[in-house]
Amino acid sequence: MAHLIIQTDFGTGSSSVSAMHGVAAVVDPDLKVDDGNNDVAQFNVLDASESLMYLLPYWPQGTVFVSVVDPGVGTSRRSCVAKLSNGSYIVTPDNGTLTYVKERFGITAVRQIDESVNRLKGSEDVHIFHGRDVYAYCGARLAAGIIDFEGVGPEYPVEEIVEAPYIHPEKKPGEVSGMINEAGDHFGLIGTNIPFHWLEESGMSYGDMVTVTVLEGERTVMEEKMPLVRTFGDVPVGTPLVFSSEMRTAMMAINQGNATRQYGLSFGPAWKMIIRKVS
Amino acid sequence: MAHLIIQTDFGTGSSSVSAMHGVAAVVDPDLKVDDGNNDVAQFNVLDASESLMYLLPYWPQGTVFVSVVDPGVGTSRRSCVAKLSNGSYIVTPDNGTLTYVKERFGITAVRQIDESVNRLKGSEDVHIFHGRDVYAYCGARLAAGIIDFEGVGPEYPVEEIVEAPYIHPEKKPGEVSGMINEAGDHFGLIGTNIPFHWLEESGMSYGDMVTVTVLEGERTVMEEKMPLVRTFGDVPVGTPLVFSSEMRTAMMAINQGNATRQYGLSFGPAWKMIIRKVS
Amino acid sequence: MAHLIIQTDFGTGSSSVSAMHGVAAVVDPDLKVDDGNNDVAQFNVLDASESLMYLLPYWPQGTVFVSVVDPGVGTSRRSCVAKLSNGSYIVTPDNGTLTYVKERFGITAVRQIDESVNRLKGSEDVHIFHGRDVYAYCGARLAAGIIDFEGVGPEYPVEEIVEAPYIHPEKKPGEVSGMINEAGDHFGLIGTNIPFHWLEESGMSYGDMVTVTVLEGERTVMEEKMPLVRTFGDVPVGTPLVFSSEMRTAMMAINQGNATRQYGLSFGPAWKMIIRKVS
Repeated sequence: MAHLIIQTDFGTGSSSVSAMHGVAAVVDPDLKVDDGNNDVAQFNVLDASESLMYLLPYWPQGTVFVSVVDPGVGTSRRSCVAKLSNGSYIVTPDNGTLTYVKERFGITAVRQIDESVNRLKGSEDVHIFHGRDVYAYCGARLAAGIIDFEGVGPEYPVEEIVEAPYIHPEKKPGEVSGMINEAGDHFGLIGTNIPFHWLEESGMSYGDMVTVTVLEGERTVMEEKMPLVRTFGDVPVGTPLVFSSEMRTAMMAINQGNATRQYGLSFGPAWKMIIRKVS
Repeated sequence: MAHLIIQTDFGTGSSSVSAMHGVAAVVDPDLKVDDGNNDVAQFNVLDASESLMYLLPYWPQGTVFVSVVDPGVGTSRRSCVAKLSNGSYIVTPDNGTLTYVKERFGITAVRQIDESVNRLKGSEDVHIFHGRDVYAYCGARLAAGIIDFEGVGPEYPVEEIVEAPYIHPEKKPGEVSGMINEAGDHFGLIGTNIPFHWLEESGMSYGDMVTVTVLEGERTVMEEKMPLVRTFGDVPVGTPLVFSSEMRTAMMAINQGNATRQYGLSFGPAWKMIIRKVS
Repeated sequence: MAHLIIQTDFGTGSSSVSAMHGVAAVVDPDLKVDDGNNDVAQFNVLDASESLMYLLPYWPQGTVFVSVVDPGVGTSRRSCVAKLSNGSYIVTPDNGTLTYVKERFGITAVRQIDESVNRLKGSEDVHIFHGRDVYAYCGARLAAGIIDFEGVGPEYPVEEIVEAPYIHPEKKPGEVSGMINEAGDHFGLIGTNIPFHWLEESGMSYGDMVTVTVLEGERTVMEEKMPLVRTFGDVPVGTPLVFSSEMRTAMMAINQGNATRQYGLSFGPAWKMIIRKVS
């Protein structure tokens, strides 16, 4: 039986997540239900997409992910289940949450949830919590094998899946750039969507000094020289560094410090990072 | 085997909750242990009660809930297990945590925990963590079938269960009122104990404008006109609305905003909401 | 099959913890994975050690704990698995995390993780997240029985396990002292490493008044008289007390208040508490 993994923007201390676990347990008490990230940035479909990309490679093939970042709940956005290239599934509102998964992981088919079948009975009068009444319920039925993928509802073209706009990464000799898609509170790590091997392809190597520039729109928020290294401990405590994240993208941090706070950074389509080789 | 669900006011990053999971695993390593809400407001038995009401309908019948909001730990309050109308159980200090469950869900019987049997051996000298030593241990034994309900300890009358005072909801033509029992930090949702169908019975319909007044004691904290709608997306971003919560009670929010912070609201027996039809 | 328990300093809303659960599920989908404390103080190996001491007695013998507080990730610190006196295991960087466990719980043997065998295949180019790629993976293999303890890698002497310096507790007639190792945000409890029975051995009894002095280095941060009692409810709300923690160490708190904030306290090797009998 497949695992059912729940991610939301509800925050970590939420009865709502527990109610979703409960709905799954009612569908099948032996289902293995676990949490993804319930601190996805509020209403932020790109952050939901990034979080899925982070988790997808590390859970077993066939896992059913339920993702609930749903500012349009109760309106006309589609509710869907996407089947992925590795056999896993994502149950989500079709509102941009699948953006990166569609482009970079691969979606082989998508179906709209038929709520006449795959919605918790008696919940039809509730318009604000499809996470519990539709997504957890439908995902649990799929994970438990009560329905197969065809049982989700009618198929529609993968091309119709909603994509949210964002800054695509670019490279040229001596320079790479891309979007900041993470600016954590906790460790203050600054993540980007720049593939790390692009730095090497642009002529930068471990041990080089690079110049990191961060723009919010047109405004330069920071610009600083720092070394390109393998890990935090390769620089003194309190010192900035560029390195490869565990997703193999370019990341900036301050060793045992907090780059988010120290430089006043944030993330999303307004935030761009440029990394240049110091000549 | 029944699920064991743990809710506390310990906060989400707590070793104490993990120790409770561990005690359950020692009782029976195959027990299915999961979390309810571990961010219940500190020392707040009514919030614990509301959280239980939120979860009870969505977990399987027969689930054992352990609720630890226990400012009187180690003093003379009773420790009990309540058997509910749907066959589920709540293990809790009898300190007001069962208030709403008794009134609105139904308790068929209650027993005082016999600590000579249902307390972790060797813990008798610990006076401050009955959540681990008594409630998790006793709840795990019940969920695992090691004891049945009679094995908990002596029965006492349901009428003796402690109830905490609160503002009961009221309705009259054109007006409903009740207590604010939720003023979330995260999404800033303002929940009440007013059954949503009372609005319709008082003459208010989807699409109507209503006046929402919030009082803290005698002081009017806010008063504002807003529409009565089905869901967030029925109003522009940043605009307030009244709608039916997923518990089918009247709720106020700001679409993609935070009503708790914007209006400076809180919750509990000092906080009353009045909703009137705009004529 | 043994439980696998994960503690980290990643914070509670972390995709990283979910990726660790996922790696364990790939190793064996039937493994029982649960969380310890994922709010260990950042980079704080003594806090990790204290948290392990808190959990070890309450999870079944044979449990595999994975502890990831790893500021030196990717540098030369050893990665190890310690076998404990009760048959449980700890998988951790050997960086001081085992300090209290070695001294007070008992480690019978320790082995360095052979990353040629016990590292997630394909992760060799990732230098910053051994929690996922080495510790969760190796711990899951051990918990699932895919490897036994010998299969971890080469043994090394228990004496070589890294210990972090801290303030050891002391007692003399009428006075005990030790390190503050907890100053919680949530309930504001002030925990120490002073065994509670030492207070009795030094001549203090329940009902006595004691003087509590807190020093940060040489500076006296607070000094106050308060009663030595069994539990919070033995003093009025808002009043300080000294009592035995659930770990049977001396603890200070304010009943339904927050001693951390009220007195401006913190924890770690700079923070000492002295408790004296009022004569």
